[in-house]
Amino acid sequence: MEKTDFIYGKNSVIEALTSGKREINKILISKNLHTDSKIEKIKELAQEKGIIFQFVGREKFLDYQEYNHQGVIAQISPIKYTDIDDFIETHKENSSVVVLDGVEDVHNIGAIIRTCVCAGIDGIIIPSRRNSPITSVVEKTSAGAVNHIPIIKVNSLSSTIQKLKNNNWWVIATDASSKDTCYDINYCDMNFALIMGAEHAGVSKSLLKMSDFQVKIPMLKDFNSLNVSAATAIIVFEAVRQRLKK
Amino acid sequence: MEKTDFIYGKNSVIEALTSGKREINKILISKNLHTDSKIEKIKELAQEKGIIFQFVGREKFLDYQEYNHQGVIAQISPIKYTDIDDFIETHKENSSVVVLDGVEDVHNIGAIIRTCVCAGIDGIIIPSRRNSPITSVVEKTSAGAVNHIPIIKVNSLSSTIQKLKNNNWWVIATDASSKDTCYDINYCDMNFALIMGAEHAGVSKSLLKMSDFQVKIPMLKDFNSLNVSAATAIIVFEAVRQRLKK
Repeated sequence: MEKTDFIYGKNSVIEALTSGKREINKILISKNLHTDSKIEKIKELAQEKGIIFQFVGREKFLDYQEYNHQGVIAQISPIKYTDIDDFIETHKENSSVVVLDGVEDVHNIGAIIRTCVCAGIDGIIIPSRRNSPITSVVEKTSAGAVNHIPIIKVNSLSSTIQKLKNNNWWVIATDASSKDTCYDINYCDMNFALIMGAEHAGVSKSLLKMSDFQVKIPMLKDFNSLNVSAATAIIVFEAVRQRLKK
Repeated sequence: MEKTDFIYGKNSVIEALTSGKREINKILISKNLHTDSKIEKIKELAQEKGIIFQFVGREKFLDYQEYNHQGVIAQISPIKYTDIDDFIETHKENSSVVVLDGVEDVHNIGAIIRTCVCAGIDGIIIPSRRNSPITSVVEKTSAGAVNHIPIIKVNSLSSTIQKLKNNNWWVIATDASSKDTCYDINYCDMNFALIMGAEHAGVSKSLLKMSDFQVKIPMLKDFNSLNVSAATAIIVFEAVRQRLKK
């Protein structure tokens, strides 16, 4: 996290939560803090707005010693997230979204967003846990692409996927053990959500179950696997190829 | 460059040059050094073996203060490079090679090599100047892929391209202003060399001129451009798609 990415101190964090002017990725509260009415207020407001707060050891605050943080830091997002319902409402035909399931490397996330913008993908969905939020490092790695595509942060990927399915979206999950390849799918004339998993764990079992298609990228040499940002580029541009050919 | 990647001191560098046991990327010689018979020997051996040597200011040696480098450092490659003639001799049919023209970011190079191994590309060609050599950082970013594909380091890309052409290879260069897209090319039943350029400069004019095909990746949104490692993934896997379909 770069140092421009946070707000510190109880009052400033309460102000940020109340005003809603800055998008907050998450709030860190020191474990060693005696709770008081302001901390209670912060927890209450965060819960209300669905913002994650974590109680963390003092080592997490070491980088912020020079600030009068009072044991409370809010990580700020450089972008405004888009609401999933608004997104669905405005994307009804031939739309596409990439869902990141547990991708933690900020460089990968930046690279994926940049590629998705070039491929005309309509949005990116990230979960508020188990995934890096959009930080200024992600913004930089994406070459600014984070500002050119709606980014939707959701508390539950599975209820989001269900919501998409209920709204006429088809769900494609990547899975190295699937029979179909990413070239067997027809990406035209439908809304599709493509779920990309973390490099080692892959897409979560529960999301794999909910998906309509599972696809793999065929490997010509049995070596390790592709980096998740390369894998995303290959699949979203296969969709571009098909949609242009039509 | 990681600190395990070098040999220091006049005698050790002469020994490395003479024995040929370690692959040397390049040799740095301090500008402030009074020349002597050993330095002359190093220059002579390096020239003989086509290894680059550079005269550099003392700031380049700051990281190596703790070593008795005597103003001479040889950067070592973690891999053994393959000779272009040997490569051509052993790749005569449906072979493929990716040529990196001025790609300096070590993470991009590592990512590209990893992707190329997965796509069954037969070799990687890098120039000894204007391109990062294979360092241990590249090795790491490639997830070890540098050990699974021949990497050919050449002094002149244009004479290498000419040599490939003379040996029945077709040359494809990426160029954002070309009319054809990477989906218009038939990658089957031929040997092809795909030239990828640096992110901003693109492929050198002289190499573009020598190429048989120029292709672009179609962008669905007019935004900046793709990262070179994403671009490479898209094109080499289009070749995979076509070759599997056949």
